Amino acid sequence: MITVSVMYPNHQVSTFDMTYYCQFHIPMVRQKLGSALKGVVVEQGIAGEEPGSPAPYLALAHLFFESLQAFQTSFAPHVQEFEADIPNYTNTQPTIQISEVVHV
Amino acid sequence: MITVSVMYPNHQVSTFDMTYYCQFHIPMVRQKLGSALKGVVVEQGIAGEEPGSPAPYLALAHLFFESLQAFQTSFAPHVQEFEADIPNYTNTQPTIQISEVVHV
Repeated sequence: MITVSVMYPNHQVSTFDMTYYCQFHIPMVRQKLGSALKGVVVEQGIAGEEPGSPAPYLALAHLFFESLQAFQTSFAPHVQEFEADIPNYTNTQPTIQISEVVHV
Repeated sequence: MITVSVMYPNHQVSTFDMTYYCQFHIPMVRQKLGSALKGVVVEQGIAGEEPGSPAPYLALAHLFFESLQAFQTSFAPHVQEFEADIPNYTNTQPTIQISEVVHV
């Protein structure tokens, strides 16, 4: 199982419309990726390490796929449409992290 | 539910011993945090957005707690011990992100 984490940095001037993201962007991504997408978790940043410190990321989405290939094959045809929607909910550009789950 | 994501940056000279991390560090964290820790997922970075690009983070651990307070109360007494173990498995310092799960 792999995780594609889409992380929106929390700069001083960053904005993020979580309502739009959850009601429009994520449903569109789900619909386009179909059964290749095994699940999605959305998170809202609330803090950094020290109490009261800002979160490094304003918002994160973790998308789960069976393999790197399953992600690439399903994602590539829609990437332009996904990217074109970004300005509708944020003025930041996400950092993308692809990871493999390690069993401990 | 909140997630505490501990993310180890992937610089050119970064090292990370995943075996030590999974066999010693995470079991110690589990034991010290006890029932406040609701679960842990460990991930190994494999790529960035573009095929062949490096992952922004070498390794990530996501720790789940019922609330920010439950995290702070259980974590604070052990933070020095956790930090003292870091040089045993990596030469980087982690970025900490605390997030709230948003239901979509």
